[in-house]
Amino acid sequence: VNDKHIKYLNEAHRLAKKKFGSTFPNPVVGCLIVKNNQILSKAVTAPEGRPHAEEIAIKKAGQKSKGATMYVTLEPCFHKSRNGSCADQILRSGIKKIYIARHDSDKRTNKKSIHKLIKNKISTTVGLTEEKTNLLNNFFFKSLENKRPYIKVKMAISQDQKIAWSNYDSKWISNSKSREHAHKLRFSSQAIFTTAKTISKDNPRFTVRKKNKIIKHLPVIIIDNSLKISLKSNILKDISKKRVIIFTSTKNTKYEFLKSLGCEIILLKKMKNKQLNLKTIFKKIF
Amino acid sequence: VNDKHIKYLNEAHRLAKKKFGSTFPNPVVGCLIVKNNQILSKAVTAPEGRPHAEEIAIKKAGQKSKGATMYVTLEPCFHKSRNGSCADQILRSGIKKIYIARHDSDKRTNKKSIHKLIKNKISTTVGLTEEKTNLLNNFFFKSLENKRPYIKVKMAISQDQKIAWSNYDSKWISNSKSREHAHKLRFSSQAIFTTAKTISKDNPRFTVRKKNKIIKHLPVIIIDNSLKISLKSNILKDISKKRVIIFTSTKNTKYEFLKSLGCEIILLKKMKNKQLNLKTIFKKIF
Repeated sequence: VNDKHIKYLNEAHRLAKKKFGSTFPNPVVGCLIVKNNQILSKAVTAPEGRPHAEEIAIKKAGQKSKGATMYVTLEPCFHKSRNGSCADQILRSGIKKIYIARHDSDKRTNKKSIHKLIKNKISTTVGLTEEKTNLLNNFFFKSLENKRPYIKVKMAISQDQKIAWSNYDSKWISNSKSREHAHKLRFSSQAIFTTAKTISKDNPRFTVRKKNKIIKHLPVIIIDNSLKISLKSNILKDISKKRVIIFTSTKNTKYEFLKSLGCEIILLKKMKNKQLNLKTIFKKIF
Repeated sequence: VNDKHIKYLNEAHRLAKKKFGSTFPNPVVGCLIVKNNQILSKAVTAPEGRPHAEEIAIKKAGQKSKGATMYVTLEPCFHKSRNGSCADQILRSGIKKIYIARHDSDKRTNKKSIHKLIKNKISTTVGLTEEKTNLLNNFFFKSLENKRPYIKVKMAISQDQKIAWSNYDSKWISNSKSREHAHKLRFSSQAIFTTAKTISKDNPRFTVRKKNKIIKHLPVIIIDNSLKISLKSNILKDISKKRVIIFTSTKNTKYEFLKSLGCEIILLKKMKNKQLNLKTIFKKIF
């Protein structure tokens, strides 16, 4: 008996998945409005997170929403946007049933919309296909939970678990396929996190490329405790196009020069072991 | 000697003025980047406030920004957006001179960008044509200052300062010109604020119309202390298209019904004189 509803929810998940990476800082959400077994409208969270999928779907369906059923991969927001919360917009639309794949653990919503919908006599079913929302929006739930950014680590390691020869003479051990994948990962990320050592050894451009063409610029966050980064680094050559954020404990003339170039520098105290505290850094960039 | 700079600033003001009303909740800002007496790029704050004019202008001008002069009608923001603050973006771009018509009194910026630009050796001139920014963005500065929305009152009053006969038999005393002007005012406003009495006497639609066609829906905020609003009001007929926010001190079955229709109701305590406190309401909607 749930097959039909799962089918529609899965279609909403499929829509969301296609747009993964474009809706930061918001999770990507898919939404369908259905009446008499006909799909009235489909929508996904808009680029950069607003408007939400529900708002777009309701607008598309128009007056036909009255008496319809909504399928949505995440609990509609309870907090206000320009047009009111998505929960309020659903109430206004006259939608009578809703299937929500998973509640939103963002504390501004956190089941408040579900309660409001139920209280206002919308038939509300929560939890079917929940795991699909979890998987796709891992970055969102995990970072909320841990209060730090969701981080993917990219390392090229050989079978003996080394990353380079001790004299750094070794060359690329990744291949074109893995590099292509790395650029896909970059494309759907918010920033690249690295160290001054990687910059001095590899002199990376840290752009997002597809078939060797630059398709996106991401902020680059660098740990550079003693400000060793070379002023001739590739990363500083195209500084007009991206944010370069440096964490350091050193304040000298190089610090001032990097700042006047437009680097954003965050000064932190060293720990006893003379390193910067990664936890503090993660908190700052959350 | 300032003529040239005032000319460019005025062009920035002219650009901003054309887009007034589309950039809420942000002020509307115009920006020019000029090099060797040639305009490299022009921009205005994007719809709904982001990206800012400076960010768009820098992106348009590209590498040519290096060594150029920026003319902008408001101090660039110091607080972060996706691409860093506008102050940081100006530093990254290589712009060497900037003319700012007025500082931004938003406490997140409030001269901090001006100080940062000067500290990083950008030649910075503030204050030329300041009064033009003030006039255009009155809504922004005034509401920041008073911590309540900037409100324009529209009343049709006869020469003897009355608004209607005591039996309400009187008809429109406004004319087509004044009504057209009122719709222009609505168009560049964020919400319509009214009372249950106006709704019961006039049964307005409160849409934004041009040549009798609806071109925009605004949230309608209603003071309705005893929930007297008729359920047959025009305002409730197209509730799917707009937010209806009601301030009241009454909680009854009508309250629940209005909520289930999708009205957002805010329950307030009455004052001793049995009225709602307008100051409290203004604070809530700020």
